[in-house]
Amino acid sequence: MKPITIEVTRGGSVESRHHVSLAVVDGAGRDVVAHGDVGTPVFPRSAVKVFQALPLIESGAADRFGLDARALSLCCASHSGEDGHVELAGTMLERAGLGEGDLECGCHWPFDQPVALSLARRGLQPTQLHNNCSGKHAGFLCTAVHLREDPKSYVGAEHPVQRRVRAAIADVTGLAEGDLPMGIDGCSIPTHAVPLRNLAQGFARLAGGEGVAPERARAGQRLMDACMAEPWLMSGTKRACLRLMEAAPGRVFAKTGAEGVFCGAVPELGLGFALKAEDGATRAAEAAVAATLARLWQGHDVELAERYDSLSRTHLRNWQGTEVGEVRAEWP
Amino acid sequence: MKPITIEVTRGGSVESRHHVSLAVVDGAGRDVVAHGDVGTPVFPRSAVKVFQALPLIESGAADRFGLDARALSLCCASHSGEDGHVELAGTMLERAGLGEGDLECGCHWPFDQPVALSLARRGLQPTQLHNNCSGKHAGFLCTAVHLREDPKSYVGAEHPVQRRVRAAIADVTGLAEGDLPMGIDGCSIPTHAVPLRNLAQGFARLAGGEGVAPERARAGQRLMDACMAEPWLMSGTKRACLRLMEAAPGRVFAKTGAEGVFCGAVPELGLGFALKAEDGATRAAEAAVAATLARLWQGHDVELAERYDSLSRTHLRNWQGTEVGEVRAEWP
Repeated sequence: MKPITIEVTRGGSVESRHHVSLAVVDGAGRDVVAHGDVGTPVFPRSAVKVFQALPLIESGAADRFGLDARALSLCCASHSGEDGHVELAGTMLERAGLGEGDLECGCHWPFDQPVALSLARRGLQPTQLHNNCSGKHAGFLCTAVHLREDPKSYVGAEHPVQRRVRAAIADVTGLAEGDLPMGIDGCSIPTHAVPLRNLAQGFARLAGGEGVAPERARAGQRLMDACMAEPWLMSGTKRACLRLMEAAPGRVFAKTGAEGVFCGAVPELGLGFALKAEDGATRAAEAAVAATLARLWQGHDVELAERYDSLSRTHLRNWQGTEVGEVRAEWP
Repeated sequence: MKPITIEVTRGGSVESRHHVSLAVVDGAGRDVVAHGDVGTPVFPRSAVKVFQALPLIESGAADRFGLDARALSLCCASHSGEDGHVELAGTMLERAGLGEGDLECGCHWPFDQPVALSLARRGLQPTQLHNNCSGKHAGFLCTAVHLREDPKSYVGAEHPVQRRVRAAIADVTGLAEGDLPMGIDGCSIPTHAVPLRNLAQGFARLAGGEGVAPERARAGQRLMDACMAEPWLMSGTKRACLRLMEAAPGRVFAKTGAEGVFCGAVPELGLGFALKAEDGATRAAEAAVAATLARLWQGHDVELAERYDSLSRTHLRNWQGTEVGEVRAEWP
């Protein structure tokens, strides 16, 4: 089936167009919805932070260091580097006897402009704790410390931390480790390419417990529950993940990834989903995931479907506040 | 012919893909190169600021207010809101007896992060002078004052300022005013959709003087010469327009527009060009325009061709500085 089109309009015309591929799959791997190319591997980037955090739970490190729902949500986060995110990442590292200097994710100014400007106004510079992945990295370090591994170079593909992550991704997506094309992510860890269909199935399996070991499913559910309970820690003020999860508290898990990816699960429907905008545009992925959730809830919860439908449309305003167009999803 | 593909790679894989349509046309309107859709109207946005500034020259306002090459370059700019841009826009308004409050473009933080952070560090807020279009708007106001028109609401489609702009765009692109679909731009003025082929021809006509009135061609050449002489004022530090024009001083005019547009001219080859990334991505438009210039110079100036070829490839690095992929143009 053809991809979903995300249209960006201006006046009465379509100014720009995005093409989004989408897989919605149940725990048994049956396609519920498939648009565009769901069979070619794509880099899921940060959209699989839940998969990457499985060893943190399964190793016992999360319990050893007393990581509650707030901390676990941060471990699955692409956070905005707001004060609350930064402080909690620092606390996690302290509990493992480490500090900011042990992180290997690099520094960047928070992507969200108000947050970056607020830092600058206070005369501050971003540290590695501000990196949107600092919670995930703090989780990696907690696991390494708990398992008495040398944390140095934990971002390397052959460090035990990353080998466990690779094995977990292969397991939940039903692929062989050797079938995962590799790249290096923005935060320096490996990112493994997986077809959308397999990504979606991975989330459905964790949510429903089908096809994975019971302790793995429990770990995945614990992580997704933590994100749904503490969505701000997994994202940030006004972010899409926050709005998508606040719209249906405890009923939708949704996580963004760089280059136009979104993955997630709707546990009570037994479904996982994964999508990618061919061109990598975040605005397209955000419109598509809301439109997808609207469709999935249709027939189950009309009010929720309407809420997501409204989230799928963004009214575009210019610098004077005049409405100039919109972003909207068109199904083929 | 098929569109140009801009590939964004990670590791050994293509992570994201953009599709770019391109028209290169001579002054007589002959297609020299045509890729993708060159016949459907697209909003050129800021890429036609030279067309929008024609009345400023033709009315005599530029000479009346002593606008030199620096000021004329700023009138055609999507500038970065650096101190030099802001000061010059303020000076232009002063000469017309007006001030920042007479602008109707709205405020925004400079798009370029270091510039925005530098403002915030100094405890400043952006004014309308920081708007990337403030030079163009200062030019509009100079024209209105010179012609003794009420400058109020000069952004409105029916204000004489915008009617002159619309007539100039229709004239140089060879279209009837009624054939220009309209939208509202980020800075509140109308933006008129024009097929890429006609946009390219407009720039070729101004550069070569074919098919337009001599005084119109002279005005266009004066504006493009000003931009080529003062490219920083027309763009900003490290910006693509700056790098593209510095690579061939006085020999290439190139101007970006929002939503993935680039237009320009190579006067000594008698060519105009216009391109648009279907999805509106700036990174795609920037790679495509450099790749186009590399092709156009091939056979005329090999060294220049190589310089543009190298500008068409961007090496992508992560937060630790590790190279993770590249952006590159693939011709169909």
